[in-house]
Amino acid sequence: MNDLPIGVFDSGVGGITVLRALTEKWPGEKFLYLADTARLPYGAKSSDTIEQYFIQNLKFLLKEGVKAVVVACNSASSVLMKKKIPSPVPIFNVIHPGARLAAAATRTGHIGVVGTRATMLSEAYVQAIKELSPEANVYQQACPLLVPLVEENWVDDPLTNMVIYRYMQTLLKHPIDTLVLGCTHYPVLKKAFKNVVGASVELVDSPMGIIAELDGAFDLATEGDGQIDVACTDLTPHLENLFASMLLPRKANSIRLVDLGR
Amino acid sequence: MNDLPIGVFDSGVGGITVLRALTEKWPGEKFLYLADTARLPYGAKSSDTIEQYFIQNLKFLLKEGVKAVVVACNSASSVLMKKKIPSPVPIFNVIHPGARLAAAATRTGHIGVVGTRATMLSEAYVQAIKELSPEANVYQQACPLLVPLVEENWVDDPLTNMVIYRYMQTLLKHPIDTLVLGCTHYPVLKKAFKNVVGASVELVDSPMGIIAELDGAFDLATEGDGQIDVACTDLTPHLENLFASMLLPRKANSIRLVDLGR
Repeated sequence: MNDLPIGVFDSGVGGITVLRALTEKWPGEKFLYLADTARLPYGAKSSDTIEQYFIQNLKFLLKEGVKAVVVACNSASSVLMKKKIPSPVPIFNVIHPGARLAAAATRTGHIGVVGTRATMLSEAYVQAIKELSPEANVYQQACPLLVPLVEENWVDDPLTNMVIYRYMQTLLKHPIDTLVLGCTHYPVLKKAFKNVVGASVELVDSPMGIIAELDGAFDLATEGDGQIDVACTDLTPHLENLFASMLLPRKANSIRLVDLGR
Repeated sequence: MNDLPIGVFDSGVGGITVLRALTEKWPGEKFLYLADTARLPYGAKSSDTIEQYFIQNLKFLLKEGVKAVVVACNSASSVLMKKKIPSPVPIFNVIHPGARLAAAATRTGHIGVVGTRATMLSEAYVQAIKELSPEANVYQQACPLLVPLVEENWVDDPLTNMVIYRYMQTLLKHPIDTLVLGCTHYPVLKKAFKNVVGASVELVDSPMGIIAELDGAFDLATEGDGQIDVACTDLTPHLENLFASMLLPRKANSIRLVDLGR
């Protein structure tokens, strides 16, 4: 069992920020990364549809054999929080750990959250933070254009900065001192967010959260030669390049196309 | 047979620009619009995956009963051009008619085409235009951010104008006098495109093309009370609003959620 890989899934490339952090922390582990690229993105879709995709992804990973599943997608994690989805291995979502870091980081109790439309609609972060700090004030802002901007690779780009600036205007009317980057694509835009919100606002992201979570729960290999296998439901040359560049300095050992069935 | 609706499909809301033009020209007709919103967008996906979705969409429309199918999606149309997909009713793609209008409009023989990554990779417009005018020079530019910008409803927006301006820089190095808006989302951005390319460049879009095509091929009802029924594979409040606003001044008679099966 301990020799099995850790399964990680996302709709596309966003989860690579989580995968990369996991492989840096535990280079001796094996990882199986599933990207449901045939149906990406999840963030604009309804919770019923995301739940259906979630179950198909989970089935695939369990059939392949994994010792744990990391849901490296906030939109899918927000579904997991509403429904108990049965599984013989532990499933880790990215929302609880992000909420824990945010609740620990805030001094004023005013916390901002940014993410996809699906994650914001679910209010998963609001609920998770309020469970930990009932008196906290949580403000949400959906940023639907940021995923396509990262997927176009317009990072460190004045146009992307302007989009972030616009999305942040409403949030910055509140006295937030902590901002949760509640989408696994956003760590790539951390510098741009920092420039807009300023040094006094602490940023929390999904890779930080999931590392803190797994570090306590599991005994994982910090040394040795691990492995990264990638399965995806669709593959284009553009996606393949994006995968590779986001995973650097690590490289996938294999990449293959799979059919999730129903 | 003549009483059956015309089936129109797209991955999402882009095809509404085509549907609206059809209902304006032939208000007495019935239309069944299928939006594969559970898997949108198609434009970033591989031709194999788009072909699979195409066949499922076609099956659904044929089962419902339609007298013709309009593929109101350039990415899906570009797949149709490579493969003959058998059908008992005529299927109309948006690429041939757009290519015909462009070939007729150009005086210099230099034609630009913009669209999704999938449509540009297929080179469907290049081939279709060169079949009509072998000496034409066709230049392509993929504009992946324009679909998300329209879906965010940032139309008539300085940020969107800047994105279009940036995408057009390479194309405008060529002496084009005609530009094909090769994605059914782009008619919404026609004014912005016009401002960037200037008055001397003629714009051709999918609704113009498909109207010209059907006008010759079919005897359709220009008078009477038609009907618009919408079927979609996923539905969120945001999508429902976007559908409604893009279809104005017409209103859908019904909207329902469907499962395409496999």
